[in-house]
Amino acid sequence: MIIIGIDPGLAKTGFGVIEDRRCTEYGVIKTPSDEPIQTRLRTIFHRIQKILDTCEPDELAIERLFFSRNVTSAIEVSHARGVVLLAAAEYGIGSVGSAGGSGSGSGGLAVFEYTPNQVKQAVTGSGRADKKQVQKMVTALLGIDENIPPDASDALAVALCHANQMSGQTSGIV
Amino acid sequence: MIIIGIDPGLAKTGFGVIEDRRCTEYGVIKTPSDEPIQTRLRTIFHRIQKILDTCEPDELAIERLFFSRNVTSAIEVSHARGVVLLAAAEYGIGSVGSAGGSGSGSGGLAVFEYTPNQVKQAVTGSGRADKKQVQKMVTALLGIDENIPPDASDALAVALCHANQMSGQTSGIV
Repeated sequence: MIIIGIDPGLAKTGFGVIEDRRCTEYGVIKTPSDEPIQTRLRTIFHRIQKILDTCEPDELAIERLFFSRNVTSAIEVSHARGVVLLAAAEYGIGSVGSAGGSGSGSGGLAVFEYTPNQVKQAVTGSGRADKKQVQKMVTALLGIDENIPPDASDALAVALCHANQMSGQTSGIV
Repeated sequence: MIIIGIDPGLAKTGFGVIEDRRCTEYGVIKTPSDEPIQTRLRTIFHRIQKILDTCEPDELAIERLFFSRNVTSAIEVSHARGVVLLAAAEYGIGSVGSAGGSGSGSGGLAVFEYTPNQVKQAVTGSGRADKKQVQKMVTALLGIDENIPPDASDALAVALCHANQMSGQTSGIV
């Protein structure tokens, strides 16, 4: 089972791919703030499409957005999140023999959403863990011995959260 | 000059096309709430792509999103807005001889954003006009003698706002 986790953002979209709890790929898609928003969204969309084509994930995990966030940031994240979800919906459609998810009902890659608390709980055992703790546990759980950019680490955290959910665990560190 | 105005939303995305201040096309793209969000975004994206291909607009006008809105609704609108802007960025790229905007710096359709107040001001002369007044003035200004759905009327209002801006008018009813 190959899972891609995505942490969307207009300036930085993190992604991380895990297969049987090993990390096979991670990175951050950056877009320059002096470009028009539609050009930045296009960059994110095409990069995600390429990553999906290369990594051939079975499922996609992404954080659910909440009220409590800063509204301006929620608006920016949602624009990026929209094109990431579109890339998931487009994945494998129209091409023969490519991987397709089971959850969306009309083709595409199955998408699973988790709250920020569920993600933190899954990788640190606490829903109130800070970013540093999440980053530390992600590298420990996946046996990564290099520094991961925070956005990639958040993406891997949501992928791990989904892997736990699929295997019936309630916490990733149990 | 052909201008398309778009009023994005996850459940209903209104669109309206004007050419020399005559309405040539309007409508509402609806997506069912029981479908996964990625499927709904895919529907909006492909419908907008088809409308752009059919109407061949020179420019796209869309409302800017603001803090004051309800956060949950802002998140939903932003997802839809993201795929609409992506369709604008993709428009005409890679195909020969199709129309392309001038504003985005790297191909695609030029996008212009206006605040809700600018739009209301442009079509009614007051930034504090209500939806009904906007709808009434849009039909009057464009000489439409049928009932327009509110989402299409809002889309036509932002297209009219942009037409005024381009012609140097500060208010659409002057």
